[in-house]
Amino acid sequence: MDDPLVIAGREFGSRLIMGTGGAANMTTLEQALISSGTELTTVAMRRADANGGTGVFDLLHRLGIDPLPNTAGCRSAAEAVLTAQLAREALATNWIKLEVVADEQTLLPDPVELVDAAEQLVDQGFVVLAYTNDDPALASKLEQVGCAAIMPLGSPIGTGLGIRNTHNIEMICSRATVPVVLDAGIGTASDAALAMELGCDAVLLASAVTRASDPERMAAAMRSGVEAGRLASQAGRIPRRYWAQASSPGFS
Amino acid sequence: MDDPLVIAGREFGSRLIMGTGGAANMTTLEQALISSGTELTTVAMRRADANGGTGVFDLLHRLGIDPLPNTAGCRSAAEAVLTAQLAREALATNWIKLEVVADEQTLLPDPVELVDAAEQLVDQGFVVLAYTNDDPALASKLEQVGCAAIMPLGSPIGTGLGIRNTHNIEMICSRATVPVVLDAGIGTASDAALAMELGCDAVLLASAVTRASDPERMAAAMRSGVEAGRLASQAGRIPRRYWAQASSPGFS
Amino acid sequence: MDDPLVIAGREFGSRLIMGTGGAANMTTLEQALISSGTELTTVAMRRADANGGTGVFDLLHRLGIDPLPNTAGCRSAAEAVLTAQLAREALATNWIKLEVVADEQTLLPDPVELVDAAEQLVDQGFVVLAYTNDDPALASKLEQVGCAAIMPLGSPIGTGLGIRNTHNIEMICSRATVPVVLDAGIGTASDAALAMELGCDAVLLASAVTRASDPERMAAAMRSGVEAGRLASQAGRIPRRYWAQASSPGFS
Amino acid sequence: MDDPLVIAGREFGSRLIMGTGGAANMTTLEQALISSGTELTTVAMRRADANGGTGVFDLLHRLGIDPLPNTAGCRSAAEAVLTAQLAREALATNWIKLEVVADEQTLLPDPVELVDAAEQLVDQGFVVLAYTNDDPALASKLEQVGCAAIMPLGSPIGTGLGIRNTHNIEMICSRATVPVVLDAGIGTASDAALAMELGCDAVLLASAVTRASDPERMAAAMRSGVEAGRLASQAGRIPRRYWAQASSPGFS
Repeated sequence: MDDPLVIAGREFGSRLIMGTGGAANMTTLEQALISSGTELTTVAMRRADANGGTGVFDLLHRLGIDPLPNTAGCRSAAEAVLTAQLAREALATNWIKLEVVADEQTLLPDPVELVDAAEQLVDQGFVVLAYTNDDPALASKLEQVGCAAIMPLGSPIGTGLGIRNTHNIEMICSRATVPVVLDAGIGTASDAALAMELGCDAVLLASAVTRASDPERMAAAMRSGVEAGRLASQAGRIPRRYWAQASSPGFS
Repeated sequence: MDDPLVIAGREFGSRLIMGTGGAANMTTLEQALISSGTELTTVAMRRADANGGTGVFDLLHRLGIDPLPNTAGCRSAAEAVLTAQLAREALATNWIKLEVVADEQTLLPDPVELVDAAEQLVDQGFVVLAYTNDDPALASKLEQVGCAAIMPLGSPIGTGLGIRNTHNIEMICSRATVPVVLDAGIGTASDAALAMELGCDAVLLASAVTRASDPERMAAAMRSGVEAGRLASQAGRIPRRYWAQASSPGFS
Repeated sequence: MDDPLVIAGREFGSRLIMGTGGAANMTTLEQALISSGTELTTVAMRRADANGGTGVFDLLHRLGIDPLPNTAGCRSAAEAVLTAQLAREALATNWIKLEVVADEQTLLPDPVELVDAAEQLVDQGFVVLAYTNDDPALASKLEQVGCAAIMPLGSPIGTGLGIRNTHNIEMICSRATVPVVLDAGIGTASDAALAMELGCDAVLLASAVTRASDPERMAAAMRSGVEAGRLASQAGRIPRRYWAQASSPGFS
Repeated sequence: MDDPLVIAGREFGSRLIMGTGGAANMTTLEQALISSGTELTTVAMRRADANGGTGVFDLLHRLGIDPLPNTAGCRSAAEAVLTAQLAREALATNWIKLEVVADEQTLLPDPVELVDAAEQLVDQGFVVLAYTNDDPALASKLEQVGCAAIMPLGSPIGTGLGIRNTHNIEMICSRATVPVVLDAGIGTASDAALAMELGCDAVLLASAVTRASDPERMAAAMRSGVEAGRLASQAGRIPRRYWAQASSPGFS
């Protein structure tokens, strides 16, 4: 596998992590997942639980995509830890995407509850991928308590506002020693490419694809955007210049 | 050919137009051109002429890439028209990328000389692709005098500053009835994707690839970036929202 | 007069030039003009002419504010020159703010007609203050043909989009040897301050004040904003840093 | 007093809060403080303590400016609480600007220690003005535990990068029921004006003034910038429009 994403020792060929939320129906979701090329997809345990359905897990299994349970909807460390434990039992995985949101209006993480939950889950042997604000200090703290990946937002969930603070994302990436996954806020393919160029190791998105007019096509766009950004981040971009520079008279 | 770029009746499968300026050597240029997937590549006639070499044309011929002669280095309508005429004779093509720059510091187009040259060349039967500032009024004027494509800059040539004024590019795209090609200023793949999302039909770039640390890889990045942006522009992105929106509790 | 704005040898204590368009009524306009502290105010000759009124000129005379006739609404060099000539006769001033717009949708200048008109008016002895796109090449050309001030837009007239391309405004200011006046697009006070910090010598605005909910208060805001930006541009701002820097343990 | 800033029942005529860090010497600091018009100025207790000097307090007393002790340099809740207690004894004030930073590279707040310290200090009767990241969730939490003012950063301390995430600052202001003070990151006057336009009640800055080439002049610029932004936020700015809008032919 060329240039794999490695999280907690597992390798993924795709750097696009999908979410399932927001899809109009199973058929659309399936098309989008295939088109995205994803190998890892988050599923909200509390929502799955509430609806009692196993359809999404069946779908992922059929497509050979690993499910990544998340704690979406949890408002406290206690809730998140309990949800993670239930997910571990139900899905036989110790991986958990940790979300502890502060309020419904912003769906921003509650930093205090988040750190508390992360510590507990790491202690209990979970591989914790932590959804966080774009705060470099909080990101460092999450890494210190043992998270396997740091997942800062670009902007609040579902807003499609892209990356509001590129400086913060750059700072987070430059200091992290675990993978950084841009999570939340992506609206379009150039946002995904930019995330990778800023140094992120992967991108996680859901509604930008599932709620697009043409989810299958947007999934393909995101796949290409992530690849483009990854390649560009490795290719060594030209420096920014203030004044123009003619193409050299060169050899031609 | 799926979703071709059509300029003056000719179809291109790739929406990435390359330039040859700035390449360190022929081998590097060849690798970058192949990696980019381009089918149309600009060549500076005055520079080619000065150096007397035909190497670039031989290379493009071998790769099956159409050469698009340009008038880079011309400072007046008279110079540009003469250069176009020489190109037509030398290359047996009536296509010309028209550049008339005002000064060496900015390499910005001289709007007055540019319109003058465009009118003369259209009258003489040329297919004129006009490099222009990101000025919607100037773009409209160039279209009115008969240009086959409008090529606004994102930022000055060689700066890598990306698209400084997305509003202007959007306005140009929304009003144009000929193809719009984002030309100049691209620094990295997300810039190319953004150009397409703003409504451009293609992207033209040279030094962002030829002067990158790894031109071949950056060419691949730009190819993916253009494809990502094109797909995203067709897929109907989600609207931008001020407050968060949870993934629907949905069917899962 | 401390730090006066000097255009064509005349000194102004205020660096805020007002326009009269968009005011709900004469009383509101008067309050706003007083609150702004302006000493120079544009008046649209074609609109004044069409309505036959002299009210605005009387008002400006009473307030001791110099009128600056403009050619708003002109679409060609011929129209603009004629309007300027009429203004010179009517108002006994050879100052003219030159506007030649390309279309009603953008109200952007027509660069070709603009340069033509500027040349004619300079030849006829006018002091020409030229409204222009934010194009450094066009700005240089206008200066070369003898304009007394260059007035680039921040964004299209009436949009309130602020300064869309700070790089262009900076480039224009760094190369100009005549005063640069940011004209059009200002929406709020921070836009006006920013214009001055980028190097502009003055700011011209109308609807941002006249169409605000409270024009008198917004005029005061703009006055303070221009002063703030001017002072800041002279005070030598701190450099931008990537990482934090603590306040020095210092002497305290 | 017209339009006073009210924090914990105390009124201030000026909405510019100064810091003393970074000043080259006492004379320069005095000139800057006077020029700024500030009525409240932060002093780092740990630095004052370390140097043993009382010069700054004497200066503030002479100028009639209230000192606001801060806990700059503290890395834990325990340190911050102890510093606040010492400040209360030394200065006979129960006001404290609370800072608990996570690391020296970013000087960003440690959200967990910050909330812990805020709770303890509120319990002990302090009036707590809390320096925080620009995180709306953290801001809400600080308000919930009883802070008298929320002081989000625009960008890291001393960077002069301005307000990197205007969306966050707007969200914080729209939800807060206590005063919001933009603290840290201000580089120039337009940044200060923008902060107020986004809804902040005041601006706190130090090095943007004390480290400017001409601190006295920059202090005046900041004073005007804050006033401009405050007035503009009250005056009801024009809406942003996509296309141009001519000044109405109007009454003139």
